Amino acid sequence: MSFHPGRKVNVGVLGATGTVGQRFIQLLDNHPFFVVKTLGASPRSAGKPYSEAAARSWKMASPVPAHVASLIVQNCQPEHFKDCEIIFSGLDSDVAGEIELAFFKAEFCVFSNAKNHRMDPIVPLVVPLVNPDHLDIIPHQRQTHGLQKGFLVTNANCSTTGLVPPLKALIDRFGPISRVVVTTMQAISGAGYPGVPSLDILGNVVPHISGEEEKMEIEASKILGSLNAGSSGFVDAEGLRVSASCNRVPVLDGHTESVFLEFKNQPAPSPEQVAEALSSFVSVPQTLKVPSAPAQAIVVTEKPDRPQPRLDIMEGGGNAVTVGRIRKCNIFDIKFTVLSHNTILGAAGSSIMNAEVAVAKGYVA
Amino acid sequence: MSFHPGRKVNVGVLGATGTVGQRFIQLLDNHPFFVVKTLGASPRSAGKPYSEAAARSWKMASPVPAHVASLIVQNCQPEHFKDCEIIFSGLDSDVAGEIELAFFKAEFCVFSNAKNHRMDPIVPLVVPLVNPDHLDIIPHQRQTHGLQKGFLVTNANCSTTGLVPPLKALIDRFGPISRVVVTTMQAISGAGYPGVPSLDILGNVVPHISGEEEKMEIEASKILGSLNAGSSGFVDAEGLRVSASCNRVPVLDGHTESVFLEFKNQPAPSPEQVAEALSSFVSVPQTLKVPSAPAQAIVVTEKPDRPQPRLDIMEGGGNAVTVGRIRKCNIFDIKFTVLSHNTILGAAGSSIMNAEVAVAKGYVA
Amino acid sequence: MSFHPGRKVNVGVLGATGTVGQRFIQLLDNHPFFVVKTLGASPRSAGKPYSEAAARSWKMASPVPAHVASLIVQNCQPEHFKDCEIIFSGLDSDVAGEIELAFFKAEFCVFSNAKNHRMDPIVPLVVPLVNPDHLDIIPHQRQTHGLQKGFLVTNANCSTTGLVPPLKALIDRFGPISRVVVTTMQAISGAGYPGVPSLDILGNVVPHISGEEEKMEIEASKILGSLNAGSSGFVDAEGLRVSASCNRVPVLDGHTESVFLEFKNQPAPSPEQVAEALSSFVSVPQTLKVPSAPAQAIVVTEKPDRPQPRLDIMEGGGNAVTVGRIRKCNIFDIKFTVLSHNTILGAAGSSIMNAEVAVAKGYVA
Amino acid sequence: MSFHPGRKVNVGVLGATGTVGQRFIQLLDNHPFFVVKTLGASPRSAGKPYSEAAARSWKMASPVPAHVASLIVQNCQPEHFKDCEIIFSGLDSDVAGEIELAFFKAEFCVFSNAKNHRMDPIVPLVVPLVNPDHLDIIPHQRQTHGLQKGFLVTNANCSTTGLVPPLKALIDRFGPISRVVVTTMQAISGAGYPGVPSLDILGNVVPHISGEEEKMEIEASKILGSLNAGSSGFVDAEGLRVSASCNRVPVLDGHTESVFLEFKNQPAPSPEQVAEALSSFVSVPQTLKVPSAPAQAIVVTEKPDRPQPRLDIMEGGGNAVTVGRIRKCNIFDIKFTVLSHNTILGAAGSSIMNAEVAVAKGYVA
Repeated sequence: MSFHPGRKVNVGVLGATGTVGQRFIQLLDNHPFFVVKTLGASPRSAGKPYSEAAARSWKMASPVPAHVASLIVQNCQPEHFKDCEIIFSGLDSDVAGEIELAFFKAEFCVFSNAKNHRMDPIVPLVVPLVNPDHLDIIPHQRQTHGLQKGFLVTNANCSTTGLVPPLKALIDRFGPISRVVVTTMQAISGAGYPGVPSLDILGNVVPHISGEEEKMEIEASKILGSLNAGSSGFVDAEGLRVSASCNRVPVLDGHTESVFLEFKNQPAPSPEQVAEALSSFVSVPQTLKVPSAPAQAIVVTEKPDRPQPRLDIMEGGGNAVTVGRIRKCNIFDIKFTVLSHNTILGAAGSSIMNAEVAVAKGYVA
Repeated sequence: MSFHPGRKVNVGVLGATGTVGQRFIQLLDNHPFFVVKTLGASPRSAGKPYSEAAARSWKMASPVPAHVASLIVQNCQPEHFKDCEIIFSGLDSDVAGEIELAFFKAEFCVFSNAKNHRMDPIVPLVVPLVNPDHLDIIPHQRQTHGLQKGFLVTNANCSTTGLVPPLKALIDRFGPISRVVVTTMQAISGAGYPGVPSLDILGNVVPHISGEEEKMEIEASKILGSLNAGSSGFVDAEGLRVSASCNRVPVLDGHTESVFLEFKNQPAPSPEQVAEALSSFVSVPQTLKVPSAPAQAIVVTEKPDRPQPRLDIMEGGGNAVTVGRIRKCNIFDIKFTVLSHNTILGAAGSSIMNAEVAVAKGYVA
Repeated sequence: MSFHPGRKVNVGVLGATGTVGQRFIQLLDNHPFFVVKTLGASPRSAGKPYSEAAARSWKMASPVPAHVASLIVQNCQPEHFKDCEIIFSGLDSDVAGEIELAFFKAEFCVFSNAKNHRMDPIVPLVVPLVNPDHLDIIPHQRQTHGLQKGFLVTNANCSTTGLVPPLKALIDRFGPISRVVVTTMQAISGAGYPGVPSLDILGNVVPHISGEEEKMEIEASKILGSLNAGSSGFVDAEGLRVSASCNRVPVLDGHTESVFLEFKNQPAPSPEQVAEALSSFVSVPQTLKVPSAPAQAIVVTEKPDRPQPRLDIMEGGGNAVTVGRIRKCNIFDIKFTVLSHNTILGAAGSSIMNAEVAVAKGYVA
Repeated sequence: MSFHPGRKVNVGVLGATGTVGQRFIQLLDNHPFFVVKTLGASPRSAGKPYSEAAARSWKMASPVPAHVASLIVQNCQPEHFKDCEIIFSGLDSDVAGEIELAFFKAEFCVFSNAKNHRMDPIVPLVVPLVNPDHLDIIPHQRQTHGLQKGFLVTNANCSTTGLVPPLKALIDRFGPISRVVVTTMQAISGAGYPGVPSLDILGNVVPHISGEEEKMEIEASKILGSLNAGSSGFVDAEGLRVSASCNRVPVLDGHTESVFLEFKNQPAPSPEQVAEALSSFVSVPQTLKVPSAPAQAIVVTEKPDRPQPRLDIMEGGGNAVTVGRIRKCNIFDIKFTVLSHNTILGAAGSSIMNAEVAVAKGYVA
């Protein structure tokens, strides 16, 4: 039986007309805990019904949920969100920094997709399948900022999010991973709308995504690290180094990553042992039975040509990752391919699952 | 002024209706050295004019050259190719082994694209921008088989072919490379026709190409190795290890590869030194001034989002490679992206350039 | 409240490993009326568990339903389907003719997607949103063939299926349509697997689909026609002429059709009247409340750039059609764009909805 | 032997950084008549070397020609173009109207791709394969505006340009065409850069291109019409009506059009007669032997699945059209598919060929 908080929590969505904002609205439709009460977007959209503000940009394959269509879009200021407790932010990083801080300081529980606060030493960077225990810095965060109810939680960059669940499962079982070389093949939806011009990507590969490699190389260590003894800060994963090469490919949704990795402890596990460790990994959201938790956090496929974005991204409702082609590497120890849904687990889905865990842990008063 | 042998050489093309065979026919049209005299294909095509045999499968964007269109397709038996000296083979590996051997033993100069004989200890595996000096095993090869004029030369797998030119340039300048991790994003034309079903690849990534990773890992060492003292065998490149992950992406032509590499000698060169070494590399075909030699063997681009298959594959007429995004790797020393045309330099173009070099070196009597 | 027959009916699927067969299996998973009991495919697959027989060809984005995965595939002979009453056939037309006839004569209720029997004068050709009343020829069909329970019902070619619902709605409201010019842009899934080679369709348009235009031009008249007075034959739609041009485009699922049409009765309706007639059309499956009936048979969109296959094909669970861009034509009366899901409404979905209607009408004993 | 004016003419390109401007620069490289002397673009680009101004937007598969790369981009004002005689304009319609007029009045010979002046009663709308005789309004145009050397010539919308050559050939042979129904499948390059977002078009069809249908319906009549007796105005094609439905498809270059047409004179020609009339059509640029004239203006293909954009757009260097699938229509008389290159014949190539004809006719003093 799944966990339920016993009441519905009102939520607001910032950046509601953007690609991540749309995904929030889609995933929150009929959510067992949360009710979308208020939408925020840029001044250009403010004052219009959402159905009108998002008329041209709505790119989900399902229509705008009826009760959301009629909401009047607000400016992204805390005073317009008074009946909300939780704020989901899909804001772009050029504006997210200050706006999210304002909501946090106004005692909202803020879940952010932007990069701005991810590396802040008292802001948790949480991939829900990996490190929801980092939420336990919330009391310290509130104390530091003199808050009663508010907090600020970030989730990771989409390509990092796909990578860390298998690393976590393997570290838990076999000890530290020392080196990870990863090449990504990332979907166009990761760039938002209008995002990638079709003249750039149709029948093409673009071997560069601005800032993406740096994020992957830095974020993984924080996520795979631990809370310190006093729950007042984070300790980076021991000895982990990541080197990434990021590419855009003509795929709609789903980031595929070729991963090569080396364990600290030798002899390293065999491919079979790796497969078993990944399959049997149980994440915290599964244990807490929150609604977005996938039945299986890491789906291992034996098929020789999988995972594939077109066929496998919706595993676990888009909140699982799929790992395939687990084999020996003749330079490091193991190589495999991992696939994740970049706008569900890699963005809005992570925020929502993080919020569910926060509710289950009692952090949403 | 470019080299010219002083006469035209008649050539035959095996596997003429396939994707590589078509590229041979296109590239050999109006070739300064070579004249296509005879075409070979499967018994199903034999006896028909080429225009009819290839009516449905011709997928080049230029039409069948007129003088080739009317040639009657032959079975792939040496007796039908008596007026040819050189045989270019685009045969599939399931039949290439025996047929190419038969032509070789019948005193033809055979240039093969198939994998069958690549690892034979007295058959050179030649990427023309890298190791045409390996052709100097030809006298030993003839002696071993009791031949006067015939020889058998192979060129490499298409994804290997793109990788080795920058490795060669860097080894020449900075000494041995010890480790190479490479992830490929390969074009559909590499699988021939009908090849990859559209339902598999449209808007998708397929993280597997059968046998491809093994080829990359093995072939590079032979190509980057050297002829032994007596020109009677090959010595593998010293201490080189390659680990590959191969992916198919929805791109028509052009293999893109994310490369991470480590030098034996430390301190390793900087990205700027690497760029300079690649740019200034001069290949043997350039020195010999053969017609297919690109003006620049390795084109280095400074643009942050290049090379891209759609924009850069025709560098050097499809016979150059383009390297971009040269940067420090925080695990190994250097990472970069390399692009090559998989059916020109990666297949038919290599065979033709190898044949040009063989002519220039006097091996085609 | 939806109709329910009060019992579950066992069904078999022929051509179970093909694209249409896979869609049958997906759509029949947890179906309120039907239980998949037996699967038939070619002798190559027979004897294997379905999960193995379809291991490489399964291209649905959801996994094989568990209870189907373990079924042993049978040869397509009636003796292997004894515990089934209904047979859904996704067989290719090269074998469908005789096999479907054998099942029909063996007293099965056969629903066929193949073209073979569509134009048979006593076989109904039924698009469930349009002419399920044609099922009333079943008693005559049984009598003719001396059968008690068996019958044979076909559904239409996928591009015809998308076209006829709006024509039906308009004929019902405004009288006969005299001329229809239609150009299709059809998805690759319509060609099955392996189907269209990616080298043919990636970034391309193929302006030809064998036999497709002829099917559209002939089938529409039968579907939009009526049963004769004695329910023993069909009368073609009065004065309807269709001219089609069919194209394959690089779209996964969903046929888009540009339609130009002329009414017999003048003055013709305005675009607004057409929109209203389409929106308010209610199909028989809706009236009968069978499970696959879409809430709205014809969804009319006002957005200027819709319908689009990526965004709109799942309207009504893939069993509705979407019409947009309704405007005046300066040659005929009206032009619009219609979109339908080619493997749901256009294939397996039609068969299933036809079977539901047949059950509701009491034809499945 | 081809015509040559005996001297080189200096030309300027307006909108030089846009998609059409880039194509001008590519096609004018090494042109036998014309030398690109000056480039104009928006104030944002002005003052920069072209290589820098177009650094991110250059999307041609060949590099920027060397002598153009170093030209300093100018504002689009006549005083910066004093050493040019001819102005090729690839300006967007939001600014083209006034700027082109200013150049015209400053005595430049202006060739425009924008829609602004196309329907002006004394501005010729010229598709070079169809109606270059309309250039003979130039003396009247000069007289009206009191000019000595300047004139203003427009070329047609890209989708119109592909349609009218076969119509012209058929009208010449068989008399007036009364009705044309046409559905287009248009390439993304027609929308410029950044143009169509990839999220809109990858694996999709967008059934709307703003203003396109109206242009096709209006422009064809002017182009296929004639100069009046006094060469002072145009007479629309007699009785021609066109109805269009325009769609965007995921194709890089090349507009494919399904055409259905009816002749005034009955009995109408057979498909064979139509094919013969199209094949034997000779356009004015061919007669004048100007450099861009294709060897064959209308290439007729017998292959059942052609023309295809990927394989056929470069016929005649991109300045021919290809017609295939000529067959009877069971509503009108004939249907066929026509393909043209939307940024060569459909834009920059038309302007250049028009300019070549104008030079050959002596209109460029």
